[in-house]
Amino acid sequence: MNKKYLLAPGPVQVPSEVLLEMAKPIIHHRTEEFEHTIARVQELLQELFQTKGPVLTFASSGTGAMEAAIVNLHSQKESVLVVRNGKFSERLGAIAEAYGLDVQYIDIPYGDAVEPKAIQERLTADVNIKSVLIEYSETSTGTMNNIEEISKIVKKTDALLIVDAITALGVVSVPCEEWGIDAVIGGSQKSLMLPPGLSFLWCSKRAWARSEKSNLPKFYFNIQEELKALKKNTTAWTPAISLINGLKVALEMMQEYGWNNLYEKNRKLALAVQAGIKALGLEIFSRNSSISVCAVQVPTGVDGVLLVKKMKDEYGVTIAGGQGELKGNIFRVGTLGYIDRTDILVFFGTLEAVLKELGYLFQPGSGINAAQKVMY
Amino acid sequence: MNKKYLLAPGPVQVPSEVLLEMAKPIIHHRTEEFEHTIARVQELLQELFQTKGPVLTFASSGTGAMEAAIVNLHSQKESVLVVRNGKFSERLGAIAEAYGLDVQYIDIPYGDAVEPKAIQERLTADVNIKSVLIEYSETSTGTMNNIEEISKIVKKTDALLIVDAITALGVVSVPCEEWGIDAVIGGSQKSLMLPPGLSFLWCSKRAWARSEKSNLPKFYFNIQEELKALKKNTTAWTPAISLINGLKVALEMMQEYGWNNLYEKNRKLALAVQAGIKALGLEIFSRNSSISVCAVQVPTGVDGVLLVKKMKDEYGVTIAGGQGELKGNIFRVGTLGYIDRTDILVFFGTLEAVLKELGYLFQPGSGINAAQKVMY
Repeated sequence: MNKKYLLAPGPVQVPSEVLLEMAKPIIHHRTEEFEHTIARVQELLQELFQTKGPVLTFASSGTGAMEAAIVNLHSQKESVLVVRNGKFSERLGAIAEAYGLDVQYIDIPYGDAVEPKAIQERLTADVNIKSVLIEYSETSTGTMNNIEEISKIVKKTDALLIVDAITALGVVSVPCEEWGIDAVIGGSQKSLMLPPGLSFLWCSKRAWARSEKSNLPKFYFNIQEELKALKKNTTAWTPAISLINGLKVALEMMQEYGWNNLYEKNRKLALAVQAGIKALGLEIFSRNSSISVCAVQVPTGVDGVLLVKKMKDEYGVTIAGGQGELKGNIFRVGTLGYIDRTDILVFFGTLEAVLKELGYLFQPGSGINAAQKVMY
Repeated sequence: MNKKYLLAPGPVQVPSEVLLEMAKPIIHHRTEEFEHTIARVQELLQELFQTKGPVLTFASSGTGAMEAAIVNLHSQKESVLVVRNGKFSERLGAIAEAYGLDVQYIDIPYGDAVEPKAIQERLTADVNIKSVLIEYSETSTGTMNNIEEISKIVKKTDALLIVDAITALGVVSVPCEEWGIDAVIGGSQKSLMLPPGLSFLWCSKRAWARSEKSNLPKFYFNIQEELKALKKNTTAWTPAISLINGLKVALEMMQEYGWNNLYEKNRKLALAVQAGIKALGLEIFSRNSSISVCAVQVPTGVDGVLLVKKMKDEYGVTIAGGQGELKGNIFRVGTLGYIDRTDILVFFGTLEAVLKELGYLFQPGSGINAAQKVMY
């Protein structure tokens, strides 16, 4: 009878409407009926990505689309520049290294965003850099990079700007075409309110042109094959039918809510969380906190692992701890996907209860009240 | 109100028990609760694969696990031998070619199985062949290769035997270890009664040893990374949580039914289909018809595409047509996964109705009666 709340920065809660859609009997994917679904999903994805170009869907988790972007948009031994400021940008670099690219890094302390001019300097110093790989929202540290400013710099060069927007897309507006980004990566278990198992890739015209010449080996994630299939409203390989059916419903819910309303809601919830955290005397880990996820420094004297565990086991509220070297040092709450003001009340009410239990001193009610002021 | 039957050789019908399990609220995958699920699924997969070794699960469709087998078990420019007798074995070859392997083929006419001694001859003639890639059940032509005999040949050599068993696993007994196979590939939307979106790979000890030395580029499908994760009851990348929850229930249903009962049921249904087809005066396309799928030659004067379309649109029964050059020439009915004697009655009753409409001459009731005799 105890209620459960999933407030991690992905996977997120899946609306019942979507769960029930996915629970319908499976239909065959090589049918007119499923072609209509693919076509409808494509229209909606294009609204989400703010593009008239094709958005590819893979049956994989987000890492698959990261690999797709890297193996399709580069050739043997090309140089790429990775902005490395957390676990997921490290993964972008690791994929590029696995495929034998010459990977250069801009290393940023965890919790910091990159200064756009640092990218400018590196691209000017080395005109052989074929692309810049960067996280929109680095989920591991709760940090957002300023992709709008960075795109202004990169689009003036021959380098592509490849953005992992897995936790940003659908949370903030990502006008891929207007800003001049070249590749945008997405995943299903974040703002799209689905279980994990689908990933997405959008490419600019110059990225598509690059992919035609790419000589890195690839098969499952070959975007030219997927493009050919998409033109016939199908997929190159067997699609994850039930997840795509759910995607249609999730995107329709988002569209009906209104894209700008969605971005505004997420921004407000993120600001509410930030305000509540500060009111509790806690410190936000990132110097440029993400709208998708707030990473909070665990205060001295409090066991961060225990805090996360107690919230889950005793109060039914799942947030995320820190990963790797940040384990025990931060906790992270998601403000993306199927989330509402009510969830923020639940989060602060529970956090306050657990902080009290763990001996942290604060004004009871101060967190929840500060969040309320932003939201209501 | 019209009932629908999915009788294709995959995707197959998903039991309500599985659909409802997948419709439960999503839990976070980095939790003790989900670790228990992974551990339980692993036990059950080991029963299915008849092994004590690890069985890896990928968030991808079956083609992903085909790629995983190829990129992890080979190194640059190595020679492989592909037994090519249909669309899916062509895909095995295409993946190996995409990764720059030296791909040799044994070409077999569509509908024929390979003669095991042909493999023997090729392996003797060229000791540089590092592996044999073959379909257990070639779904496009409804043909089963004799993997038991082939494994006796290949295990005496240094070559690995890599078997795509996507439509065979769970349909017939595949004693990977006992027979000395080196890699077995599976997919979720066949005998496992799930939607597409999961794929599986089991490797023998000598295949695992080979993978440690493999220098082909890989990341998402890196089996060493997945093995490390599996030892901690987790996955390298975000797993397809809802599908894995469904997998647990599906495997438990299969286990409860009894593995041997399952294989016996499938064999009987396949024989019933074959008997009914012959009784209708129709010809089975394959000279070694698969237990998983029966491909039937469309009789002269009948429009094969229309036959499949009418069965679906007018009678609610989805079977598959032919792919590529076989389009219009064959139709295929699956006898795998969540299927029962009742489905075979539905298939023949409907097929007879449509054949009659299309002007094919036969003794009404002869197909369904011949199938009944095998089943009841």
